[in-house]
Amino acid sequence: LKIFALNSNRPLAEKIAKTVGVPLGKTSVDRFSDGEIRINIEESIRGDNIFIIQSTSAPVNDNLMELLIMVDALRRASAGTINVVIPYYGYARQDRKARSREPITAKLVANMIQKDGVDRVVTLDLHAAQIQGFFDIPVDHLMGAPLLADHFIKEGFGSDDVVVSPDHGGVSRARALAEFLKSPIAIIDKRRPRANVAEIMNIIGDVAGKRCLMIDDMIDTAGTITLGAQALMDAGAKEVYACCTHPVLSGPAIERIKQSPIKQLVVTDTIQLPAEKRIDKIQQVSVGPLIGDAI
Amino acid sequence: LKIFALNSNRPLAEKIAKTVGVPLGKTSVDRFSDGEIRINIEESIRGDNIFIIQSTSAPVNDNLMELLIMVDALRRASAGTINVVIPYYGYARQDRKARSREPITAKLVANMIQKDGVDRVVTLDLHAAQIQGFFDIPVDHLMGAPLLADHFIKEGFGSDDVVVSPDHGGVSRARALAEFLKSPIAIIDKRRPRANVAEIMNIIGDVAGKRCLMIDDMIDTAGTITLGAQALMDAGAKEVYACCTHPVLSGPAIERIKQSPIKQLVVTDTIQLPAEKRIDKIQQVSVGPLIGDAI
Ligand SMILES: Nc1ncnc2c1ncn2[C@@H]1O[C@H](COP(=O)(O)O)[C@@H](O)[C@H]1O
Ligand SMILES: Nc1ncnc2c1ncn2[C@@H]1O[C@H](COP(=O)(O)O)[C@@H](O)[C@H]1O
Repeated sequence: LKIFALNSNRPLAEKIAKTVGVPLGKTSVDRFSDGEIRINIEESIRGDNIFIIQSTSAPVNDNLMELLIMVDALRRASAGTINVVIPYYGYARQDRKARSREPITAKLVANMIQKDGVDRVVTLDLHAAQIQGFFDIPVDHLMGAPLLADHFIKEGFGSDDVVVSPDHGGVSRARALAEFLKSPIAIIDKRRPRANVAEIMNIIGDVAGKRCLMIDDMIDTAGTITLGAQALMDAGAKEVYACCTHPVLSGPAIERIKQSPIKQLVVTDTIQLPAEKRIDKIQQVSVGPLIGDAI
Repeated sequence: LKIFALNSNRPLAEKIAKTVGVPLGKTSVDRFSDGEIRINIEESIRGDNIFIIQSTSAPVNDNLMELLIMVDALRRASAGTINVVIPYYGYARQDRKARSREPITAKLVANMIQKDGVDRVVTLDLHAAQIQGFFDIPVDHLMGAPLLADHFIKEGFGSDDVVVSPDHGGVSRARALAEFLKSPIAIIDKRRPRANVAEIMNIIGDVAGKRCLMIDDMIDTAGTITLGAQALMDAGAKEVYACCTHPVLSGPAIERIKQSPIKQLVVTDTIQLPAEKRIDKIQQVSVGPLIGDAI
């Protein structure tokens, strides 16, 4: 068993390798002068079972191509099996034609990975679980919720608190977290009475005087989660916490979180956070042991 | 017949559309907040024969993904045929395993394009003509040499001048250009006597007192072409001109060309040149009419 890290998330790869108890494989992945990806695998891998660790987070196209080129090189070097660990699966929101003439990029990416000769995919909290079916090879679909639950249980969260889904699409996820905490749930139900009229935030469930914990699979621009937090405070919540598996945190996200009533946001390390996103309000828990145990 | 431009080279796409006599298809290709590609095809294309114009020049991975996602969207919208025009085919230099455990990225890219549902590929001066065989669909392989020859014939080049191949790998290309100009050829033969010793530039053929015209398929960092130009001057050449199909021009290229004895470099527009690369010494001729006639 050999584990190779590409460039998206080397710290996580190191944690996975530590859990498994092997050193990371020797490889260099950089760029030619014109920006094309250059990969050098610096040890023999003939017949080995290989695990590649790569999130397709931003820069998504570069990270995806690194993964595909690495798989190509390994296959041509007669690797035994090629297993790819994609802690964060990019393009997952483009998983259906919501409008005419839209692509289904999540399927395109699945095709590319599969046709490249990958034997098995390990991933976490796909934006839609249906993406598993985009592959004809085994997909191990791990969940961040137990890990996030552990964290909040240690912090004393439990049946007196409320787990809140920030929209009606995420209720099952909230239900799963609430199961661990033995908490009730609430739902923020957004509704736009007419086009060009502000959304109405209606809270279903009892949050007055309570500590609320919002959960989502990913936080991207953080609009949903920060508006939700404000709605909860307006409804009399005592404190608002939030958590998610994938900290995409693009555009205005960090500023919005800073300005919001969210006391603390707990995320995992499926996506590596650059220094400017590691603010006090955000705490990271590692999926390294979880992935290490799964492979 | 509908022609769509993506983001790598819209000016060329406009020239092609003009030659064909149709307006460019309406589409917007931009980015979501997190950098993922968003494509919007703004007109019906059901049953149409589509041509997409996209060079996989830098940023190569972004340009390639734009192309693949566009094809996915068109196929799912029931396009009649999908033809992709790739004036510059990136990753072409990674076309074989030169060392152990190297990828063959040019084949990986061919697989991705083909499995995405493309019916036909139109391209120019592949770094290795063998890349045609990486596809099982028709590949139209156009040549820039006649166009470059036309330019130099108009400038008065002919049998008194010498066409020079900058290395022994490019002799056939030099031969083809010389055929048009009715010129003799010469070859710069590089040889490294021992490792860590400077290369010796040996010129095969008669260049003393002559006007020399070097030709290559692409100029990337411009090391080969500028060192070659100096070697020609040292061997008594009167003047040195250069030409190529693909102006990659990465890293130190522009500075090297400025400092070199090259009087003028003629390139095509398979790759769009940003303002800082449009210097006086570099002249662009368009492959728009050539491609327009081929599709
Ligand atoms: N990277 C992205 N950022 C924001 N929105 C996206 C992204 N990718 C896809 N979408 C859009 O998000 C919607 C799907 O999101 P959801 O309803 O949460 O599954 C679709 O309308 C997509 O067009
Ligand atoms: N983008 C690139 N820039 C520079 N060298 C490259 C690039 N892609 C591949 N190569 C290397 O160039 C060599 C092939 O170039 P050539 O001999 O001109 O066909 C191989 O050793 C490749 O590893």
